[in-house]
Amino acid sequence: MRVGLLQLNPVVGDLPGNAARIEDAYSSAVERGAELCVTPELALTGYPPRDMLLYQGFAAAAQGEAERLAARLFSKHPEGPALVLGCPEQNRTGQGKALFNAAFWCENGCIRRTIRKSLLPTYDVFDEARYFEPGKAEAGSGVVEYRGRALAVTICEDLWNDKDYWPHRLYPVDPVEAAVVSGAEALINLSASPFSLRKQALRQDMLAAICKKRGLPLAYCNQAGGNDELVFDGRSAFFGPDGTMLARAAGFATDVLVAELFGNAPQTLPVDDLSASAETWRALVLGTRDYLFKCGFKKALLGLSGGIDSAVVAAVAAEALGPRNVLGVLMPSPWSSRGSVDDSLALARNLGIGTRTIPIGPLMQGFESALAESFTALAPGKGPGITEENIQSRIRGNLLMALSNKTGALLLTTGNKSELAVGYCTIYGDMSGGFAVISDLPKTQVYALARHVNILKSASAPHCIPEAILDKAPSAELRPDQKDQDSLPPYDVLDAILALHVEREKTAAEIEALGFDAATVARVCRLVKGAEFKRRQAAPGIKIAWRSFGSGWRMPLAAAPLP
Amino acid sequence: MRVGLLQLNPVVGDLPGNAARIEDAYSSAVERGAELCVTPELALTGYPPRDMLLYQGFAAAAQGEAERLAARLFSKHPEGPALVLGCPEQNRTGQGKALFNAAFWCENGCIRRTIRKSLLPTYDVFDEARYFEPGKAEAGSGVVEYRGRALAVTICEDLWNDKDYWPHRLYPVDPVEAAVVSGAEALINLSASPFSLRKQALRQDMLAAICKKRGLPLAYCNQAGGNDELVFDGRSAFFGPDGTMLARAAGFATDVLVAELFGNAPQTLPVDDLSASAETWRALVLGTRDYLFKCGFKKALLGLSGGIDSAVVAAVAAEALGPRNVLGVLMPSPWSSRGSVDDSLALARNLGIGTRTIPIGPLMQGFESALAESFTALAPGKGPGITEENIQSRIRGNLLMALSNKTGALLLTTGNKSELAVGYCTIYGDMSGGFAVISDLPKTQVYALARHVNILKSASAPHCIPEAILDKAPSAELRPDQKDQDSLPPYDVLDAILALHVEREKTAAEIEALGFDAATVARVCRLVKGAEFKRRQAAPGIKIAWRSFGSGWRMPLAAAPLP
Repeated sequence: MRVGLLQLNPVVGDLPGNAARIEDAYSSAVERGAELCVTPELALTGYPPRDMLLYQGFAAAAQGEAERLAARLFSKHPEGPALVLGCPEQNRTGQGKALFNAAFWCENGCIRRTIRKSLLPTYDVFDEARYFEPGKAEAGSGVVEYRGRALAVTICEDLWNDKDYWPHRLYPVDPVEAAVVSGAEALINLSASPFSLRKQALRQDMLAAICKKRGLPLAYCNQAGGNDELVFDGRSAFFGPDGTMLARAAGFATDVLVAELFGNAPQTLPVDDLSASAETWRALVLGTRDYLFKCGFKKALLGLSGGIDSAVVAAVAAEALGPRNVLGVLMPSPWSSRGSVDDSLALARNLGIGTRTIPIGPLMQGFESALAESFTALAPGKGPGITEENIQSRIRGNLLMALSNKTGALLLTTGNKSELAVGYCTIYGDMSGGFAVISDLPKTQVYALARHVNILKSASAPHCIPEAILDKAPSAELRPDQKDQDSLPPYDVLDAILALHVEREKTAAEIEALGFDAATVARVCRLVKGAEFKRRQAAPGIKIAWRSFGSGWRMPLAAAPLP
Repeated sequence: MRVGLLQLNPVVGDLPGNAARIEDAYSSAVERGAELCVTPELALTGYPPRDMLLYQGFAAAAQGEAERLAARLFSKHPEGPALVLGCPEQNRTGQGKALFNAAFWCENGCIRRTIRKSLLPTYDVFDEARYFEPGKAEAGSGVVEYRGRALAVTICEDLWNDKDYWPHRLYPVDPVEAAVVSGAEALINLSASPFSLRKQALRQDMLAAICKKRGLPLAYCNQAGGNDELVFDGRSAFFGPDGTMLARAAGFATDVLVAELFGNAPQTLPVDDLSASAETWRALVLGTRDYLFKCGFKKALLGLSGGIDSAVVAAVAAEALGPRNVLGVLMPSPWSSRGSVDDSLALARNLGIGTRTIPIGPLMQGFESALAESFTALAPGKGPGITEENIQSRIRGNLLMALSNKTGALLLTTGNKSELAVGYCTIYGDMSGGFAVISDLPKTQVYALARHVNILKSASAPHCIPEAILDKAPSAELRPDQKDQDSLPPYDVLDAILALHVEREKTAAEIEALGFDAATVARVCRLVKGAEFKRRQAAPGIKIAWRSFGSGWRMPLAAAPLP
């Protein structure tokens, strides 16, 4: 049975548009001999639709759109294969949450069966228990007889609870177990599994282990594209009953993959051995492009400081939007080094992006004059300090937003995860912007990515990101001779502590026990806590790490520090 | 059996501090003859601890603190009553989420029993399925034999699923039913039920209905105080088996209420008939005070525009922190009316708060000069407009943040819910600030609250908020003769549409069907969608409405509009 996996990039909430995308991909799969087509999870609404799902009018419209799509496919392809379509289903049982996360089995012009997701991820960025009632994982519930085969339809997390694979299971039931009991001959899975670093290895290993354990083949269809902070990396695949991967669709792009479900020889298996930086690059480019385009923007601008962060963001933006659609803005102050201007101009030349230069010295003097009397009255004797540094940063934020408002280009903010973690950034200043491209990249990873960019671009532009930018000591240049390392631990130490505290939920005591300097750990944890108010008002950024600031990070503000 | 309800105001995460608060309240209840003491839900961690719960070190510390507290109470009061203590319990079953939301029955110096919450709210601002495994609501699971009585211990939501009370139930089980089957003679409930307008009437009616239906008395202990965006209004209470409320603790304040659980005559029943504006006032004052104090701030500042919003926020701040700890900043531009300065100064005099005046004309000119060349190059022929309005607003934001940074006073932002809904506000401009006091109040409610303030303050200051502020047409004064109603529908129409669209999840088509002008509805819904990116970066504000922007509002950004 040849199965077509429709690895689509839906726009969240765009029901007619997503239906058209599905229809096109279905037609393409049919042309290539597909006998069954499968979409990603919630393909008709796009994943994640989040609180749009709370609007009953939206759920009803999705169901109507699904019915019309089923009818349309049949009228176009009367002999065409069934489509397994991810779509929310209204819960009419009279109890529980208003929806099920469902797969509609569309055949002969109508919805023949609905299969409901049983395991609802409610952790990290996932809030499925907020919207959905779980399906019952019981014998026969997800198994569909089709063209002489018993196919077990599962939705994403339904596959992620095997008791032999996971040392700790989150759910008491296993829909795969239930399907096997019912005599399933193959597994079909509709997924919307977002990218994070090193996840593909886990995903592939886990799926292979389940196929092997159950002796069943699997057709796994994942979403592609960026939706807000999440990037879906696609890589839909077929696995044989011995756990061998038989075919795989493109990574970080849409695709339609048609292959034999019950085959056993590898069919289409492109190389997929990206390094961490290579995966990060693809995720950032795709996530940035999709965020801007799906929000209706064609152009972006950003401040170029001469540092590594803005250099990398400029490179991502140029790749995502085309260099002509990116503007770099230089805003030197009296504390800016000569290099910060020259290096930025060299970078812009290498990338082919335009620049504007607006010195901020006069505006700094303007604020100094405006505030002098009030500062003397309210804080007599207090000299210049962080207040004045923040004023500079907020002058730049105002200039950048003015250019954004005037030209319709989206402002990209350039802060990295290390600064956002410890608050080494100015709220309403350098944190200004609609999208925070590298806010989930620790500084050490920003350097690695910059080197990767230079290798990628080496043919067209040697040292695309100038060596001077890679070599200089990181500095905010908000006061004379300022260096990041005056205020922060060395970035390799800082990032190691942050990985444990922020991404692995370790407390200071647990991190110290691993051999880190106690005072440094205490200080870093205190800074993380103290910067919570800034992160609450941060722009959305692209999830790269296992755990990211953003919708999956929900810390209280008016709270005591962690023990 | 005399029961003491320890209606506390915990600081989230402050385990030793909360233990001390519990100990003090316990001692006070014991002095007044309590034979059993009950805390609110998760009293030891404070509610809601949110992602602090993901740190195993935190959960372990809470459990240790509970054990020490139990021992300490016993050593101080060897004959003392049992304490029913809200605290997370580590899940050692080897499956599911890492914690239970539990009540520890502390008696004779140790934890004798743990009772687990069965119904885990996972909607609006609640994310309990993210952290907790549900307890099993089965016969006997929550019933404790104590001094000859069988007491059913339930936690908050456990009481909120009666099949006769709710036309639509969220959960398949009812822990009250299970307790009744097990022969419970009374209900004990540990709650952390946040305030919203009109909720107390529902809460009281629902609790009374359950008592009457089951023929059981109830001792209900709720949390008091503000934690981030949530205000807990206390109002812990005793109900008799006929549904009569027998005693009630203070609203919007801590309290220790001791009363006879099996009594039947009203004992302590203070009047609790606050108007919507009176409740709102108390919630805003308590929420603002607690947010600032719990974050370590003693002082606040805000921009005074001469409009109603900043006037009301100034009044709240003066009440919450004392007028001497509040600074009003006037930042007139060439477009400001004379009244905007005079009225602000009159308001400040009436409230007793200090002021500073910083004209922004020179800074506006500075930005004009700095940007002129770039505007000509990038957007030739495009005249002044929203860009220039936003620049003004962001100059003010920069000045206010500079004063905040320099003086250590928290900047309060003054926007209302109507503007935040439709985006009639400037991100990084008037949206700047650490706490958004009235961001959940529609403009029409702001007016009502202002009138309420003037009645409250009439003895000490007639027309505390000057009549001129109440009477003038709302204006952002960002260009000559600007009025809000040039850009927006009349506020009574706007607020009615927003209530349906934002708070009741109605789509444009459903709102039109109620008789609203179709074009107006379409425009308002489009504006709400278009302002999502601003709200994503908004300061936290105090929840007043049934549904609020903030942690309970999770809309996608790069998405199509709702149908």
